[in-house]
Amino acid sequence: MPTLSVFMDVPLARKLEGSLLKIYKQDNHTHKTFLAYKVCLNSEGEPWTSSVVPKIRLQISRDPSLDYEYMPEMGMKSFIQSSLELLFGKHNQAIMENRVGGLHTVGEAGAFQLGAQFLKTWCQDSQTVYIISSQKEHHGLIFQDLGFRVYEHSFWNSKQLCVDPDMLLDVVEQAPHGSIFVLGNIGNCKLTQNQWVNLLSTMKIKQIFPFFDIPCQGFLTGDVEDDTRFLQYFVCHGFEFFCSQFLSKSFGIYDEGVGILVVVTLNNQLLLCVLSQLKTISRALWLTPPTMGARIITSILSNPALQGEWKQSLKGVVENIMLIKEKVKEKLRLLGTPGSWEHITSQTGTHSYLGLNFQQLEYLVKKKHIYIPKSGRINFTCINASNIDYITESINEAILYTKEVNDF
Amino acid sequence: MPTLSVFMDVPLARKLEGSLLKIYKQDNHTHKTFLAYKVCLNSEGEPWTSSVVPKIRLQISRDPSLDYEYMPEMGMKSFIQSSLELLFGKHNQAIMENRVGGLHTVGEAGAFQLGAQFLKTWCQDSQTVYIISSQKEHHGLIFQDLGFRVYEHSFWNSKQLCVDPDMLLDVVEQAPHGSIFVLGNIGNCKLTQNQWVNLLSTMKIKQIFPFFDIPCQGFLTGDVEDDTRFLQYFVCHGFEFFCSQFLSKSFGIYDEGVGILVVVTLNNQLLLCVLSQLKTISRALWLTPPTMGARIITSILSNPALQGEWKQSLKGVVENIMLIKEKVKEKLRLLGTPGSWEHITSQTGTHSYLGLNFQQLEYLVKKKHIYIPKSGRINFTCINASNIDYITESINEAILYTKEVNDF
Repeated sequence: MPTLSVFMDVPLARKLEGSLLKIYKQDNHTHKTFLAYKVCLNSEGEPWTSSVVPKIRLQISRDPSLDYEYMPEMGMKSFIQSSLELLFGKHNQAIMENRVGGLHTVGEAGAFQLGAQFLKTWCQDSQTVYIISSQKEHHGLIFQDLGFRVYEHSFWNSKQLCVDPDMLLDVVEQAPHGSIFVLGNIGNCKLTQNQWVNLLSTMKIKQIFPFFDIPCQGFLTGDVEDDTRFLQYFVCHGFEFFCSQFLSKSFGIYDEGVGILVVVTLNNQLLLCVLSQLKTISRALWLTPPTMGARIITSILSNPALQGEWKQSLKGVVENIMLIKEKVKEKLRLLGTPGSWEHITSQTGTHSYLGLNFQQLEYLVKKKHIYIPKSGRINFTCINASNIDYITESINEAILYTKEVNDF
Repeated sequence: MPTLSVFMDVPLARKLEGSLLKIYKQDNHTHKTFLAYKVCLNSEGEPWTSSVVPKIRLQISRDPSLDYEYMPEMGMKSFIQSSLELLFGKHNQAIMENRVGGLHTVGEAGAFQLGAQFLKTWCQDSQTVYIISSQKEHHGLIFQDLGFRVYEHSFWNSKQLCVDPDMLLDVVEQAPHGSIFVLGNIGNCKLTQNQWVNLLSTMKIKQIFPFFDIPCQGFLTGDVEDDTRFLQYFVCHGFEFFCSQFLSKSFGIYDEGVGILVVVTLNNQLLLCVLSQLKTISRALWLTPPTMGARIITSILSNPALQGEWKQSLKGVVENIMLIKEKVKEKLRLLGTPGSWEHITSQTGTHSYLGLNFQQLEYLVKKKHIYIPKSGRINFTCINASNIDYITESINEAILYTKEVNDF
């Protein structure tokens, strides 16, 4: 009798949208284009790295004084400290009051996993999570797998083609008391003073717990401080919150997932309790986080000259993104493509909505071999001199074709 | 009214035995000694690193052809392949039959977390875990937190002062059908041919699922192949199993937790299903594992000259461990310490039982400031020329003192 397998009931797992890249790779079309890379590309279409990183990597490798012992379970202390100062500014009220801390995590998935496990156990009144659709994979799935009720929402107004803070306000108003809100690019939202007041007071009244997501500080405005200034509002208004601070993208060291789960509490005593519980969870997840990436980042952040050079390189990235967006808009204008394309340049960051509908996106993927996620949110750094004409002409074609079909 | 904290019910987490190190660090005694380090120390008392590692680290940092893109979710393919070949040998039957695979994990905690989560979901008949006491923290706690019933056992016979395979056989015979056995240093057990036959057939009949733990291949015998030869028995006998392969210790790069969760199944189709589910879990844990450590290890394993140099460095470590153990035994003999100390040299590996009872251990910790875990299992590489006299004299004292008290 043949032995039965322990694994006989295990099916193949369903694939996530990550497999778009797989389909793209198998495509043999000459002009195939992938606009959904997570990483920021440079003008040669290669993953961008801050110019300051390679020399620091070399310097670290040459340093005979470094040992390669296990890190403490919290991770590298100096790394956490300099990253928190980067996020909040050195003289932030909460830092001065010793009520901000963090655990060094394995990337952003690690930060969300850690935070979600903590909330599952210790905040049982907060088991409903609101998350922006484009973050459902992967962050939303982490909460879902742990048994949270996860609702998707969006503040991209696809009719008016703009980021619409009122959409966020509506969702907050309707959410159950004590919900968790995963808030990504809220700094991108351009809330008016009035909208901020509204948002903060509604969140306060409903005891909404914010779980911020800072995936690439500096990539929105080119200024690291501007990018996270909104966190101050929450600190000043006495909010407690978690924040996933992901640093790999801002330095261009994607292969070393360097993250922090940032914790802000009302006082130091609460912070110590929360951190101690988080340490227990992280011990079971990875014991101690790997250090190479954290070492590189700490070396840069703790040296003013290097930090200056790094910030300069971020400015370069953001200028380049704006240039690409301007060019796309201009090309579409020259082609006479129907519609206004202002929304392309009014959005900030590497990833922005193209503002196309489902039919148009499908046309681009199926007819033009241009791979775009279903959300229609593309990575603009995937566009460069060698593909911009093909992409803009294809967008024009998609719009004319679907217009024709719909008019017919 | 002051705001209430979301975290008001969160207590400080209880501490694990890791805090022994904390107590040691706070101790001001001149001769304080810590014998519980996890890492292998060199004769200067510094964490050991294979001599081949620093130059490879430098070489990698200098290589302009490397990109730092996200790794695939499975981890570095070349790393997994060369590590599996290291574990099983290139021409292993299961490798040839494409029914061995692995996922690159963040250290050994990551491998156990991943494997345990999988077993929790997909092998619901296997929810009882047997683990050796010295591995209860941290691996056992991972299973426990996920809801497994965890039983501790030991095959250290504290009366006869030897590793006793019959103790393992007894536990296997009494364990419920379908239990999971976390098997660490079974290669250290010196089973006779007969005992192997017994063990394998009992495990087969009772459908015991082995979850092997290879924390430092090469550190037992100095020969990487000898250390894991026992895995062949399980492969040949048609077992399916998991194995945590931890590579950081064998190379001396402790700060980069480099691990693999190895999977052996009955055929390739089952393997693909299991790996696909594991990938789903790891996506939520850390998305992609960090690569620096894996890059270093792959560079060494894929180059025969470097691999030879690395293996030579392992031999040096093991020779040094044996030398330390011989010296400890000899010193105790010269001191006229009662008892036979053969068990010190008959055990292999960095960590071995001193063979002291609770009273004697307590005497060493409290009176002599020599920090030893409760299990009495110490890291022999913590002993060097500068502390061996103090340690052996203290052991002698502890034995004479407790003998006196007990005789009284």
